[in-house]
This record gives sequence, structure tokens and C-alpha cells, in this order.
Amino acid sequence: MARVGIGVIGLGRMGRVYATHTARQIEGADLRVVADPDPTTLDDFSARAPGVRAVADYHDLLTDPRVQAVIIASPTSTHAEVVREAAQAGKAIFCEKPLALTLEATDEAIGAVERAGVPLQVGFMRRFDRGYVEARRKINAGVIGQPVMIRSIGRDPHRTSLEFANPAVSGGLIVDMAIHDFDSLRWLMDDEIERVYAEAASLVYPELASVGDVDTATINVRFARGGLGNVEVSRTAIYGYDIRCEVVGALGTLEIGYLRETPVLLLNRDGVTHDVVPHFPERFGPAYTRQLEHFVECLLHDRVPVVGAADARAALIACLAATRSQHERRVVCLREIEDVMKTN
Amino acid sequence: MARVGIGVIGLGRMGRVYATHTARQIEGADLRVVADPDPTTLDDFSARAPGVRAVADYHDLLTDPRVQAVIIASPTSTHAEVVREAAQAGKAIFCEKPLALTLEATDEAIGAVERAGVPLQVGFMRRFDRGYVEARRKINAGVIGQPVMIRSIGRDPHRTSLEFANPAVSGGLIVDMAIHDFDSLRWLMDDEIERVYAEAASLVYPELASVGDVDTATINVRFARGGLGNVEVSRTAIYGYDIRCEVVGALGTLEIGYLRETPVLLLNRDGVTHDVVPHFPERFGPAYTRQLEHFVECLLHDRVPVVGAADARAALIACLAATRSQHERRVVCLREIEDVMKTN
Amino acid sequence: MARVGIGVIGLGRMGRVYATHTARQIEGADLRVVADPDPTTLDDFSARAPGVRAVADYHDLLTDPRVQAVIIASPTSTHAEVVREAAQAGKAIFCEKPLALTLEATDEAIGAVERAGVPLQVGFMRRFDRGYVEARRKINAGVIGQPVMIRSIGRDPHRTSLEFANPAVSGGLIVDMAIHDFDSLRWLMDDEIERVYAEAASLVYPELASVGDVDTATINVRFARGGLGNVEVSRTAIYGYDIRCEVVGALGTLEIGYLRETPVLLLNRDGVTHDVVPHFPERFGPAYTRQLEHFVECLLHDRVPVVGAADARAALIACLAATRSQHERRVVCLREIEDVMKTN
Amino acid sequence: MARVGIGVIGLGRMGRVYATHTARQIEGADLRVVADPDPTTLDDFSARAPGVRAVADYHDLLTDPRVQAVIIASPTSTHAEVVREAAQAGKAIFCEKPLALTLEATDEAIGAVERAGVPLQVGFMRRFDRGYVEARRKINAGVIGQPVMIRSIGRDPHRTSLEFANPAVSGGLIVDMAIHDFDSLRWLMDDEIERVYAEAASLVYPELASVGDVDTATINVRFARGGLGNVEVSRTAIYGYDIRCEVVGALGTLEIGYLRETPVLLLNRDGVTHDVVPHFPERFGPAYTRQLEHFVECLLHDRVPVVGAADARAALIACLAATRSQHERRVVCLREIEDVMKTN
Repeated sequence: MARVGIGVIGLGRMGRVYATHTARQIEGADLRVVADPDPTTLDDFSARAPGVRAVADYHDLLTDPRVQAVIIASPTSTHAEVVREAAQAGKAIFCEKPLALTLEATDEAIGAVERAGVPLQVGFMRRFDRGYVEARRKINAGVIGQPVMIRSIGRDPHRTSLEFANPAVSGGLIVDMAIHDFDSLRWLMDDEIERVYAEAASLVYPELASVGDVDTATINVRFARGGLGNVEVSRTAIYGYDIRCEVVGALGTLEIGYLRETPVLLLNRDGVTHDVVPHFPERFGPAYTRQLEHFVECLLHDRVPVVGAADARAALIACLAATRSQHERRVVCLREIEDVMKTN
Repeated sequence: MARVGIGVIGLGRMGRVYATHTARQIEGADLRVVADPDPTTLDDFSARAPGVRAVADYHDLLTDPRVQAVIIASPTSTHAEVVREAAQAGKAIFCEKPLALTLEATDEAIGAVERAGVPLQVGFMRRFDRGYVEARRKINAGVIGQPVMIRSIGRDPHRTSLEFANPAVSGGLIVDMAIHDFDSLRWLMDDEIERVYAEAASLVYPELASVGDVDTATINVRFARGGLGNVEVSRTAIYGYDIRCEVVGALGTLEIGYLRETPVLLLNRDGVTHDVVPHFPERFGPAYTRQLEHFVECLLHDRVPVVGAADARAALIACLAATRSQHERRVVCLREIEDVMKTN
Repeated sequence: MARVGIGVIGLGRMGRVYATHTARQIEGADLRVVADPDPTTLDDFSARAPGVRAVADYHDLLTDPRVQAVIIASPTSTHAEVVREAAQAGKAIFCEKPLALTLEATDEAIGAVERAGVPLQVGFMRRFDRGYVEARRKINAGVIGQPVMIRSIGRDPHRTSLEFANPAVSGGLIVDMAIHDFDSLRWLMDDEIERVYAEAASLVYPELASVGDVDTATINVRFARGGLGNVEVSRTAIYGYDIRCEVVGALGTLEIGYLRETPVLLLNRDGVTHDVVPHFPERFGPAYTRQLEHFVECLLHDRVPVVGAADARAALIACLAATRSQHERRVVCLREIEDVMKTN
Repeated sequence: MARVGIGVIGLGRMGRVYATHTARQIEGADLRVVADPDPTTLDDFSARAPGVRAVADYHDLLTDPRVQAVIIASPTSTHAEVVREAAQAGKAIFCEKPLALTLEATDEAIGAVERAGVPLQVGFMRRFDRGYVEARRKINAGVIGQPVMIRSIGRDPHRTSLEFANPAVSGGLIVDMAIHDFDSLRWLMDDEIERVYAEAASLVYPELASVGDVDTATINVRFARGGLGNVEVSRTAIYGYDIRCEVVGALGTLEIGYLRETPVLLLNRDGVTHDVVPHFPERFGPAYTRQLEHFVECLLHDRVPVVGAADARAALIACLAATRSQHERRVVCLREIEDVMKTN
């Protein structure tokens, strides 16, 4: 493939980010079609990207022969369906996380991708963040010896809407947020999660309880080879977007993360103060671009993307197990989630 | 009481620290007698503190009428017995943590103290550390709103001896170390722990498994009023002594802790480097002094020490529940530990 | 102007950066022509930017009617000449710093620009760095009260070549490096520099003395309204690229700068370590892009760039005064530099 | 000498600190006499130190045979006179900085000390601060190679009284404050200062100008072996007490200093905030104790204190040269200050 023709499905917040990056910055990629059911959104985008075809129905995008690859940034609930159709249309697929909210739907989508033999990359952008990449490189180089314990913290600066918080829409706090942390755990420990125990509650936003969601969770993790982990996710960090990860090894420890937005310290009667990264676009902006560069590079050079179907599936299973643990107040082995699948 | 005559029982590492502090720095306190069964230790101390009576048998200290208060720094396994005898001798008591390794022995010691009506303070020195004190002050002042989540990390720089690691001697990792963290959790959240779930393993020092101990544990916590917590304790921090605590509130978050020992940064080809606090005397030295100052001040002004029998008991119960959870791989309610007591 | 046709003169390190940014990322700008006398450089660039005209002689670029604006990134010694010719050709001009190594040549270039009535922006990219911009915003908002003292440190990670170090080529350490610091001083203090005193020496690289240059300088500054300043520049920071600025005000102090490259801390037996920004592309990459965006935006909306001829001239005068102070071991008033001009 | 009998002259702020430390914490030292002309101060002290003789006239202290060593903490203007008398009385002398405000008086005092053959230590407590000590150790160990440039910043949190600011009383800002920095420069660079150039002004507190003082100064320094330095002193740091030092070497750079008072970070809507060391007792408390320990240890073991007459003299000369530079707006060689002495 000399150049990759790209179609972006969904022009919400993430979709616009991807469409803009694709159009401008990714070497070897051409944005050719965008799809969004909202006419205003579509018109706004077209005004700023005159050469790009804009369609209301993404099926028109899927049938456009100039599109070799699709970036799926439509609502979560539609991911699995769109992935299936894109696979059947023979398109290479980049899909925002999660593929689906249930393991069943995830497996159906993955099945379609495998049958079609098309490439699939999932949007775990932390794997392309300089901090996570450098930490992984150091771990692989033996700098901290055998990693034995990992802590991952993900805190959002504000509550989601109650509509989105509804577990039927977002999967609930753990599925929506901790899926990134579980992916980091697997990737940095190079191990599989065996069992989890989650404590969760609505502590700052009691209204979340009314839709069945929580605002804080702490999840204990045991890995297959015996290592330990803990994941904290919350929506209560009113000070900013706070993403940290720490890997303890036999020879040393790595801490990933930073809070400061601008490199300015103010020293006055109130003490020493600096600002905080407000949200994920500021924290992971370059990582969003780099994951698309990786996707396009894989297509151009016929390589397999480093974050694929198996990763999406494994992180979702951990989320589902943790969510069950949260509700049933007991330790849940991930095998239990898979076994249910087999039984059904 | 115009001045307080002090006796120190046990001249091990902590005992010598206390004896030195008492002799020199605590306003209103006079070190009058020290007791230690080891003749060399006793002679060494006497050489540097000529006016202080030195006895091999602590019973001789307990019968010395010039001693109004004892500082118990003998081996953990003897604490309960010595507390009982000191109480019966009518002495005010400062006892290193823990009072005992079992709830039964703890309750017996506490019973003796209550019957004798003598003051008792337990060595939770973090309550006198400037960081913890300032954090608690800020929480009480409403600076972070309602605290909802707390994380406490305690990492030791090296493995203990296998003799000490033996749960029969030290209580095991969780009892030996996390007792400080559980006390911090209760104090800073101003709440009681309801249930715990611990994952623990011997990951860096497999030889610990041979004596029944572990080197790393992560413990999920739920409080009575619904708040969440997590405690991590380990002996694997080869880089130094790493004690941190973080309290998340509805209006902000507090982080307590520091790693740097000397205020020097080195910038060279290896990057930017600073050293790390090596162990607890460097980190909590002033807090050890301040807790004794508080103890003496309480005696002089007839006040009740802020860290007493109930705190020692509650932190131990959390440790016992977490240790049981570790072994039985299930969530354990603290009530369960107390109920066993009642049944016996 | 609907869109701006851009020509880049000189495809050295900075020129390639500008050409790449222009081609890809600047809204409203089209890279149309590049010029470089080296055939290999030209071929390399063409291979990656097929639609862009590539010429060996920049005069061919200046006569191309599709070019409305030029970015001058040729060797410093050619800047003044190219600026003059570009002005005469009626092109809008973005020129890397400095415009020239002498005040005379600078004034000739500025004169040509003024006679031609074309826009001119000079490459003081720190004015577009988030740290400097935020500090300036806070100062203007009164956050630190009246600024009274400013310190600016600029340290390069390694020696330049002896060819470049030659003051006839680069102007010497102070002209080459401190020109950025003097611009920051003027901008953040909103004041003019009145007099300077520089101490400078070849301390790490004695070979620099053989070509008449130094590797370290510390320059005391007095401002017209009485404020004080200090500038340190050096090429001895083998640990990385270290750019800091501190503004002390009556109500508080601001520190600008950061050293960490990746957000990863390593904690091991050697202490706590992080890496360091290696050089200016990593530190000021986004600022290089933003200054071009500003330039293009000014052209599109017929506005005057915020960093123009007067700023280039004032910073150079401070450099020349400091260099004279360095050589004559005395305090030099900036008026002295200007007076020489008038006499000549 | 088995134990050292100590007399403290002057019970102002520093005198009380020294008297308290001596009485309680210095091994081998006994506080025997204190002297202060103010009856209330004397009574207050006596009430808390019943066994210590208290005299109004320090001459009575000097004739007390139980006093082997005096700590001089009387007003600066009396130092030289008291040093002379103490030397004549055969007492070992610890004197707060500076020995005197003029080189003449300094030399007279030093002459008396030398004739009497008594030990003399001067209160440059930074030499006993863990940060400075560790930095010096690293420099001597070659960690940063040859040190070539040093920056020392000393900022006080508030204006002194106008009475004290009067140069006739305190020597002015540079003599009062920068004397510590010049001592650090000499000690850490292991070199002598050759010439200085100072810019100084009253920028935040214009009322200081009315008594002939300033609130901010920046001083360029050249060392005898060619190294460079810069000293900034000010009284405008309303955020706290800010003492920093940075030594640049051929193989790396060392930064000494810290700002945080309590190890607590607050993260809320205003960003991330920590407090600041308020003033010198908090920053250098342990160093004040350690320098007295060193003094007493030298007396007990018949060793020469590491900070003596020559250091006091050299730092004062640098201050006098910088003050002259400030007033005459020219570079001043330190030799000039000494030559004036010889001429007189």
C-alpha cells in the first residue's frame, strides 16, 4: 500500500481529534471520508476540510473504495456492530476502546475481524505515551529487575453525565475507566490477571447511585505468576486529570506520571503552586497521534498492530470480573467470566 | 507532678533512642533507671549516662519509687506482660507498638491498665509527624471537604531476619508494618474500618515463605461510613524507606510524604538524581521525640494521651483481619475477629 | 490573503524543522518553494515533499510569485543580506535570530524592511513557549505585583564547533545565546536594559579561548526603571538543555522551566533519578510551531507580529554591550553602543 | 579538657537558641553563665534554667573561672570589642558573624585572639548544613569534576527594621546577608574571590533608601583561578526563606536547597500547593546545633575549628568590595580593600 485512504466514523470529541490528526499529521495517510449522523457537525467539519467527503450514514463510507481503513469513534454501544460491518467490507480497523460492553459482543466482533482477515488496532493510547513506553523499555532492559507489584491510578476531573454513567451505556466506572489501567497492568507486568477484588462506592456524587454507578473504586489484583497489583479509578479529582502508574521491581521502582500543565511555579504568601493537566487531550494528545501513526505504519508495511483483539478482550474481562466483585463483595477469578461465556 | 521520673525497659535500638531523648531533650522529664538483660548494653549506656541507675532485671526498675513512668521498648513478645506488671506497679506507661500479637493478650494488658487506672500511650509516632499532623489539621479545617478515599504505603528498605519474620515472633508482615497504616487510616478518615481484603505474596524474598511470611501485601479497605482505602506494605524498597499517604476528599486531595534525604540534586550524564531517606530513624526521628514530649506533658498536666488503648486495639484488629484475609483469600469483616474473641 | 504561500530559505536543522511544520501543520499556509545550495539536502527534502519546488539559488525563490512570505533559516552571516533582498522583493519575512551580528548590518536590514513596508517577525520562540506565555500573563494580571528582579539561565549541553564559536561567525557566546535571555528580560520586565556587566571565561573548554570565545558568562543587568537582572549562559551543561527564568515581584515570584524529558522516575540503590531534556527541539518544539502559526495568522489577518525589528535590535544591543563589558572588564551602558553607531 | 564550661553573652534571638542548645544537647558542654543587660530577658531565662548563673554585665561572665568558652551573640556592633576582651580573658570564642563591620576592627579582634592564642570559631552555620556538607563532599570526591561556576541565592522573607538596615548598624544588605554567600562561594569553589561587581537597589521597600540601604542586590564574582560566580541577596521573598546554591562543574552540576516546610501537598482547584520554610531557624536549626557541637568537640580534643578568623576576614572583604562596587558603579578588586588597610 503506497498511501492509506482513511474514513473516520463519528465526529464526536475523539472523532474530531482523529480526523484532524489524520488529515494533517500522519505520514502516508489521507483522510478521504468522514461520517456523522448530525448535519451541523458534518457541515462544521466540511467547512474546515473542503476536500473530504462527508456522509451522514457510515455505510456510505464503508462502500467507498477510496477508503482502505476506518477509525471508529462512534458511541461505545455501536462499536461492535460497526467493527463487524467494517470487517465485512474488508477495511482495516482502528477502534476506540472498548470494542463492546459485553464479552459476547466483543467475541462476535473479533470473530468477524478474524474471518475477514483485516488488521484491528484498539485505542489503548497509553501504550504510545512517552512515559509508559520508556517505563516498559526500562523494565525490559532489566533496570528494575523482576517487576512484582504494580499500582495504577486513573482519576477524572469530573462526573460524567448520568446518562453516560448508566452501566448499560458506559459499562459503569470500572469498564469505562479501569480498562486502560488493566491494559497497563498486563503490558507492564507482562503477565495475565488471575483474580480481582473491588471495593467501590458513590462517595462524592451520590446521584450516581441512582443510575447504578459509583465514583470511586479500588481493585486488588493477583497475577498468574503471583505478582500483585492495585487499580484505583475515580471521577472525584476536581484538581485535574491524574494518571499515575508505579511498578515495583526487585531492583528498583518506576513511577510514571506528571501533574504539571505549564512549566511555571508561583511562590507567594500561599506557598508554592503549580497548575494541573486539565484532562486527557492535554495529557495524552501526542499519544493519540502516535497510535494512529503506528496503525498507518502497520498498514503501509504489512505489520500487525501491537494492540489488538486479544488485548481488548483481556482488559474487558478484568473489568467485568472487577465489576462483578464490586457487586457481589467477593473475590472473582477471571476464569469465572470466561466460563460463563462457554456455558452460554 | 512537678517532674516525671522515667524508666526505660529495653535498650535495643528504639530503647536507646528513647533513653537518649528522655535524658537530654524532654522538658520536665528525668531519666532515672534503665533496664536491659544484656550486661554489655547496660555498661555501654551507663558509661555515657553516669547518673542513671542501670538494672538487668526490669522488675527492679518497676519497684524504684523514683520512677513514675515507664517506656517499654523490650521485644514485642514481652510487651503485654511488661505492660501488665507496670500497670500493677502503678506506673504510667508508654509502650512501643504493638501491645501484643493477639487480641486476647492485648485485651488482658488493656484490662490491667484500666484496673490500675494508669495512663497508657502507644507508639504510633506518625501521629506526631509534621506531615501527618498538618494533613489532619487541614482535613479538620475542611480544606479538602469530606475525605472519601485514603491510600497508605509503607515500604521498608530490606528484609527482616527470618527469625523476626516468623509470624509467631513479629505477627507477620501485615501485623508488623500495616499496624501503622491502619492507625493512619482511622485517624485521618476519622472512621472505623469495616472490612478488608488482602492479597500478599513472597515475591522478592521467596525464603520468607519458608517461615510463613510474605514481602508484599495490598489490602483493600471499606470504612463504616462507606469510604474506601488501600494499604500497601512491603519490604522490597531497596531504594530506601518510603512512607506515603494520600487522602482524597470531595474538594481536594492531600499527599503526605517525602523521599529526599539531603537537599542536594546532582545533574549529570545519568540525569537528575537525589538520595532517599534510608530508614525510619531519619524519617521519623523528630516524631519519636514529640510523642514522648506529649506523653510527659500529659503526665505533668494530668491529661489523657491522644493515642491510647482503643487505638492500639483497633489497629491490631484490622491487621488480624487482613492477615486472615491473606490466608483465606476472602473478604474479612473486622467484626468477625471480635466475635471470635467473644465466643472464646 | 486567503492562504499564504511560503518559501523556506536554508534547509539546515532549523530550516528543515520550519519546512516540515509549514508543510504539514500551519493552518492557512502552503509550503511552495524551498532553497538550499546543497544538492543532497535539496534532493532529500524533495523526495519527502513531492509537490514543493526546490531551488539551489534562493533568488529563484524570491522571484517566484506564488511565494508571499519567506522563512529565513540560512547561516547567520547571510541573514541581513537575505532580509534586504526579500524585503525588496516584497515578501513578508520571518527571520531566525539574530538579524545580523552587528548593529550596523541590523539597522540596514531593518531599514530595507521599513522602506518596503513588509511584515517582519524575528525567531524569539520563547515568547511562544507555554511557560513564558503563562508567566507573562500572570505578571500582567498582577499576580506577583511589580516585577523587580529577573534571572535568566540558558545552558547548552555541549560545545559548538570551533568554526562556529569564532565570534566573527556566531558573534561569540553572548551574542549567540544570551540574545534569547535579553529578549526574555525585556519582555517579562516590560522595561529596557540600561547597563550591563559581564564576567566570562573558557573554563571547561579552554580550546574556545584560541578562537576568542568563552564557555560561560554571568551578566549583571540594570533596567531603566531601576529593576535588576542577571543572565547566565554557558555551553557546559553536559546533563542536558537547561533553560530557566525567574521573575521576583513585590508580591511573589515566578519560576519558568523544567528539566524532565519523560515523565518517569527511577528509584533504585542510586537514589531517585529522572532524565533531562536533551536539547532545544525537545524543549521548544511546540514554540517553534506556534511562532510560525502567529506569523501566518498575522499575514492572513493583516496584523503586526508581536516580535519585530525593534525587539531584534534591542536584544542585540544588550549582547554587544555585554560582550564589550566582557572584554573591557567594566560596566557598559547600552547607550554607548548606540552612540558609537551615531558617530560612525 | 573533660567538659567545657560555657558562657553565653547576649540573650537575643540567636543567644537564646545557643543557650538552649548548649544547656541541653551538646555532649560535653555545660552552660554555666549567661549575660544580658536586660533584666526581664535575664529573669525569663533564669526561670527556665535554674542552675545557670545570670549576670547583667558580661564582664562578670568573663571573670568567672568556671567558664572556659564564650558564645558571643550580642549586637553586631559590639562583637569586636567583646571578642578582644574574651581573648584577653583567655576564653575560647565562638562568635556570631560578622566579627565586625570594618576590616580594621576585624583585624584588631583577630590580632587579640592570635596574641591570646585562644581558639576562635565564626558562625557560618551553612558549613554544617547537611545540604552544603554533602555538596562539598561530592565536589571533593570529583563527582562534578572541576567546579567552574557557582550561584548563591539568599532571600529573606521580610524587611528588617530601618534601625537595623542602617549601614552603620548592620553594614547594609550585602554585609549583613551576602557574607554567608561569599563564605559558601569560597568554601565550595575552594578558591579566593578576586573581583566583584554589584548592582543593588531599593525596589520593594523604597523607605530603605532613606537610611542608605537596599533590598536587592546581584553581585558578579570572578575567582582567582578564573571561575565565575553570582550572588543574589534580597529581603523581598514574601513567600518564605529561600536559600539556594548551585555549583556547575565540568562533569555535572549540584543544586543545594529546598523550600518545602511540611511534607504535605494540597491538590485542589487552585492547583498543587505546598508551604515554604518560613525563616532561618526552621531552615538551619540543626546546623546551628552542629556548629556548636563542632566548637565544643574542637575544645575537648584540642583541634582547630574549621571556620576561623581567616574565613571571617575573607568573607567580609568580599562584602566590603561589593558594597563599594554598589556605590561606585564599577568593578572592585578585593585587593583594593586590603590595600586601603595597608595605607592607613
